[in-house]
Parts: sequence; structure tokens; C-alpha cells
Amino acid sequence: MARIVMKFGGTSVADLDRIRTVAGRVKREVEAGNQVAVVVSAMAGATNQLVRWCQDLSPLHDAREYDTVVATGEQVTIGLLAIALQAVGVEARSWQGWQVPILTDSAHGKARVEGIDGSELVRRMEAGQVPVVAGFQGVEPERNRVTTLGRGGSDLSAVALAAALKADRCDIYTDVDGIYTTDPRIVPRARKLERVSYEEMLELASVGAKVLQTRSVELAMKQRVRVQVLSSFEDKPGSLVVDEDEIVEQPLVSGIAYSRDDAKVTLRRVPDRPGVAARVFDALAGANVNVDMIVQNVGADGTTDMTFTVGKADLARAQDVLGRVREELGYEALLADPEVAKISVVGIGMRSHAGVATTMFRALAEKGINIQVISTSEIKVSVLVGAEYTELAVRALHTAYGLDGPAG
Amino acid sequence: MARIVMKFGGTSVADLDRIRTVAGRVKREVEAGNQVAVVVSAMAGATNQLVRWCQDLSPLHDAREYDTVVATGEQVTIGLLAIALQAVGVEARSWQGWQVPILTDSAHGKARVEGIDGSELVRRMEAGQVPVVAGFQGVEPERNRVTTLGRGGSDLSAVALAAALKADRCDIYTDVDGIYTTDPRIVPRARKLERVSYEEMLELASVGAKVLQTRSVELAMKQRVRVQVLSSFEDKPGSLVVDEDEIVEQPLVSGIAYSRDDAKVTLRRVPDRPGVAARVFDALAGANVNVDMIVQNVGADGTTDMTFTVGKADLARAQDVLGRVREELGYEALLADPEVAKISVVGIGMRSHAGVATTMFRALAEKGINIQVISTSEIKVSVLVGAEYTELAVRALHTAYGLDGPAG
Repeated sequence: MARIVMKFGGTSVADLDRIRTVAGRVKREVEAGNQVAVVVSAMAGATNQLVRWCQDLSPLHDAREYDTVVATGEQVTIGLLAIALQAVGVEARSWQGWQVPILTDSAHGKARVEGIDGSELVRRMEAGQVPVVAGFQGVEPERNRVTTLGRGGSDLSAVALAAALKADRCDIYTDVDGIYTTDPRIVPRARKLERVSYEEMLELASVGAKVLQTRSVELAMKQRVRVQVLSSFEDKPGSLVVDEDEIVEQPLVSGIAYSRDDAKVTLRRVPDRPGVAARVFDALAGANVNVDMIVQNVGADGTTDMTFTVGKADLARAQDVLGRVREELGYEALLADPEVAKISVVGIGMRSHAGVATTMFRALAEKGINIQVISTSEIKVSVLVGAEYTELAVRALHTAYGLDGPAG
Repeated sequence: MARIVMKFGGTSVADLDRIRTVAGRVKREVEAGNQVAVVVSAMAGATNQLVRWCQDLSPLHDAREYDTVVATGEQVTIGLLAIALQAVGVEARSWQGWQVPILTDSAHGKARVEGIDGSELVRRMEAGQVPVVAGFQGVEPERNRVTTLGRGGSDLSAVALAAALKADRCDIYTDVDGIYTTDPRIVPRARKLERVSYEEMLELASVGAKVLQTRSVELAMKQRVRVQVLSSFEDKPGSLVVDEDEIVEQPLVSGIAYSRDDAKVTLRRVPDRPGVAARVFDALAGANVNVDMIVQNVGADGTTDMTFTVGKADLARAQDVLGRVREELGYEALLADPEVAKISVVGIGMRSHAGVATTMFRALAEKGINIQVISTSEIKVSVLVGAEYTELAVRALHTAYGLDGPAG
């Protein structure tokens, strides 16, 4: 007997037939003797429609009213799934955020979960009932107004609920069947990972493997919630995201991630004096521009070239901000290049092994790929390369680290 | 300064443009110096879609889950209208049933309002805010589950809220512009009534003038809420439903109503002995068949013919039930005729005047219309006639009681 939270996203509950399929899956877990709670998103497309109505009425709408409107998407799904479960003989009851309650702060539209009182749900699960909980929503501290957690918040609801219920596992059903060593569309011989650590998942998520929201992984890590990512359309085990202690054989490298969401900015011939870098990044932070990779080469003539990456969506803003401080900083030119990709090699095994970066540089050099910027963390090495080399680089590294599975 | 509850039905909030129009109307009342609360239905069509989903998943679905699903329709509208009001500079906030709270019993799907705590709403109205309240919904006594009042329940919500807020008036905006002396589709010279009493409205509503739900009128009468029925699409005063004391000149007859929803049942040659009628109507009541008009003619040979009307939808059930007790009752034949119409003459003036029925019978006789059954109440005379005479009878009576307005 295990206690499991099962979470189904919008495509998994997109119509009545899929809701019936979900009911069947839940029934199987119940019949296997497990205590089950379910978290669901809105039916695919529903939330977008509701968001559009709010925006059409007023671009600067009251976030509290926005939350009232968009929270209805999940409310419909919980009621329908409860009905579908009862129809196949599974005792079930729907729960809105305020009913549980799922307490959040009052940052409407992007609220943070502050606590979940899971006692009543546990009591009912122990009595054999399946709680069907609305994802993405909660209630603010005064317990009178509905809040939402921001897009993708249903994963977060599921992980937070799993923590509150002390569940053995949080199963996230989605349209992919697990976490892969890299994007299977680029490398057909990519392998599904049986287990991956929270830390690795965070690096993989933040650099482009969009299976699990970063906030959800952070919360799972903090609360030690074991998360399984699996397919709602196929019937096979997925990938487990767990504490690294649970991973017996820690591979040197678990996966190769990539992202085309960044742009490279270079400031040419910046006067090489103390405080210049601080001024550059202060200005960017003030304009809400996040900076990722940074390198600086000291030149011979008292100037330096400073290169860094920003989100592509922020590039215009970054150029504007830096243009306005050009006089003050005294740099010669600002070069912007959006045609770059960040390729990352991720693995907790790196902590105890040297030579990971060397393998990477050699593999890329062999394919004639020029490395523009390098950055490293404890469990990750990232390089910036020309965007046109993305697939070539990912494939070369996947092979170089011995990740290729059997030919498909 | 007056305190007004404005209620808008599904067609009045069917899309964003109409919601904007509603916001404009509310703004006008606010700018005229009134304290305003608004009650809205779901966008036209939304509730039907939600109901269909529940039924498709399971014809015998849990009414509590049904309520969870269908209550979302109004939740969407209150949020959108609050946004639209704020966009035109009117301070507004949405209120779901559980937030007010609107307390009901726990008869999910057809709950009764048991009480509304209007104190917070009044406080905010006095401070200049417009509460936008979801019609059709409430919360059960434990305050954890959403209830709905049954179809058409938004009118009921509006009247109950008007009573709780001690409002001067409850304005029901709809797709007709008031209460007419009869159906204008049948009698183009029908006149809009400036005022009509609760009692008359009840008789008019229950016999076919489907402007206001019977339960809403009953509640308005009980709580002495002045109700105005007016058009959401035109800009003119509607009809006031008020206490008869407020009607200075009480006309003898206020309106002519008709209904084609009944069927006539005749039991031929029923043995004329005590307890037979009781047995007939007991059997029907046991099968949940409501009986309306009843006549019984005593025959010469110890038998009697018994005639009554039942709802057309109940006719098959009534025939079935009566067929099964035929042996016991010993009647000769059961005749059923769905091709009938009930025509009613309604007016509080009848209480103090004789001769109303005579005028009715004479007018119908002059047109050669045979009266099949007659029933009367304090303020109503109803007759059953062949369905093909409906329009002819309504027109003849409208003229006979001097109700015709100027030719259009």
C-alpha cells in the first residue's frame, strides 16, 4: 500500500473521453490497494479562453477578478472527474482550493502556496475516498478570495499536496513518457532515465527540457517529494525524480540539454577599471533583465571585452539600457547576437570526477564547433555556440558521454 | 438615492460586448446616486454545455459534483463584469455564493436559500463599491460545498439578495420589456402593465407568462420586495410587481394567460362510491403526477365521469398508473386528450366584483368555443378548451375585458 498523488495536465483531460481514461487509471491505482489523491488542470484550451476574455475587457484588469475567472477551468475538471470516477465505482469528491484549504499569499495571479491543511483529505483517503483537487488555485490568507499560482501551477499544486499528505510519490502524467538523456527529436537514440536527481532535473529543466516547471522541482527537492513523470497516453513506467541518495549508480553525465532562448551581448573595449562590471549588471537588473553566462577578457590596452547572455525576449530592453549608459561607461561598441544556443552537460557524477569539461571541448572541437562562452556549476558545464550547430553539438556530446541507447 | 439590485440574465451577458453594455447600465444607476448590487447569470449557453458534460459522463451523477461544475458559469460572469465595471471607472468586486455567504439547504441542484448575510455587502455599497454577485448559487450549511438553486435560480438569488440588502427595488433585466396583458404574439394590441400585484403575477406566471419564475414571485411577495421587469436591450421603464396596496386603480382583469402544457384525462363510468376519487388522486400523487383542474359529473346509473388535467409530460405516466388500478376502481374507459389549452382570466379586482365569469363564458360562446372544464380561484377563472381555439379565445377575452390598447 502506498499513498500517491496523481496529477493530470490539460491535454490529459481535454475532453470527456480522456477524462474517462483518467478515471480508469485512477481506478487501477485504487484497486492495487493504494490511497490516491488526484490533482487536475483545466481542460486544454479552457484557461486560454478565460485569460483572453479578461484581457479583451481590460488589459490592466484586477488580478483578483482574473483569478476568479480563470480558476473556473480547474473547477469544471474536478467536478467532471469526480463524476467519471463515481461512474466506474470509485468513491470520489472534488475539492476547490478554498475547500481544502490550500492557503497561499495574496499575490493574485502568481500566488505562492503557504500551507495546505491535508487532515480532512487524509481522513477521507484512509476511509477509501479519492479527493480530486483543483490544481493551480488556492485561497488568500483571509480565506475569502480565490488565488491562482500562475501558469503551469498545477504541477506545483500536486507537489505541495503530496508533501502535505506525506505521499510516497507524486505522479505527474503528461504528454511525454519521462525524462530523457536529451531531446529525442534531435537524438533518436536518446534514452529514458529511470531515475534523475532533483539537482539534475533543475539544471535540465532550466536549460530547455520543459517537462517539469522549475518551481515544482525546487519544491519537491525542498520537501523531499518523490516525483514520477509518466505518459497519460501510454502504459509504462516513467522517470523518477528523487534525492541523489536514492540513485545507486550515479552516472558521470545524465543528460545533454540545450536552449535557444538566449542572446549574446558583447561590450567592446570597456575601460578596465573597478566597478565597471557592477555598473553594467546593476543597470540591467534595474531594467529587470536577467543575465546568465558572463565572461570577460582582459585586453592589453587598459580595456576589456565583456560578453554575457540575456533572454532573447529581453534583448531589446538590454540594448536600450546599455545604450543609455554608454557615455558613462565609455565602451566602444555594443554587439548583439541572437543566433546562439546554450548546450549543457548535466550530471551529479561530475562532483567526484574531473575531465568532464575536457571531453566536452574535445568532442565539439572534433566537429569544428567554436565555443563562444563557457560557464560551469557543480553539476553542469554549459557552452554557447552558434545556433546552427545546436543539433550537431547535442548529438556529438550525447555520443561522447556514452549516452546513446540501442538504435531505434 | 435608492438601493437597487440589478439582475441580468444569460442573454444580457452572452458575450463581451453585452457585458460592456451591462457595465454601462450599472454605471448610469451609480452615477444617478444609487447604491447598486448586481446579480448575473452565466453567459447564454454556458450552463447548457456544463450540464451536458455532466449528463454525458453519467446520467445519474452526484448532484454535489454537478453543482461544482455548473456553478462555474456564473463565476466567470461575475469576474468579467467586475473587470468591465472597473474599466469604466466603477469600483466593483465579484462575490461567489460562498463568499457572501448565500446560505442554502443541502438539496444540491435545487437548493433553497435559507439566509443571506448582507452586512459586508451593505458596508461596501455604502462606501461606493458595487458588489457583483453570482446568481443561481450558494453554499450548504457546513459552508464547504457549492449549491445551485435549480434552473432560473438567478431571479431567485436577486430577489433574496434584495430582501437581505433591504433594497428599494429589484430590477430584473430580461429579453422582454415588461409584463403584458397577454402574449403580444397573439394579440398585437396587448398592453404593457405599469404595475401588477404579486398575486396576479403568480397566476400569470404559472399559467404561461414565462417572464418571472414562480418561486421568485412567491419570495418577492413574502419578503415584500418590489420587482421591476425591464428590457436589457431597450431603454424604457418596465413593469413593477408590487403589493396590491401600491396599485391605486385596480382593474377588474389585469391579463389573459394561456397554457398548452396540459392534457385532459377522463375516466368514463367510474362507480360512484365514497373513496374512489381519493384512490385515483392518491395513485397519481404516488407516481409524482400533479393534477390541476378537476370536474366530476354524477350520472344517473350509479356511475360518474371524472375529468382532470395533468402536465403533458406526465400523461404517459398517468395513463400507466391508472391502467394498473383499473380493475380495482372498475371504470369503463380512460380517455386522454393532449389537444387542449387552458385559458385564464386574472385580476385582483375580481375579489370585489361579480360577473367576471359570465363575461368570459359569453365571449367564448359568441365565438362558438366549447368549454370543457372550468376552475376558479379568488383572482382567476380558467377554462379548458380545444387547443386549436387558443388564439381565438385569448383575442376574444382580451377584447371582452376591454384590455386592447391602441392599434399598433
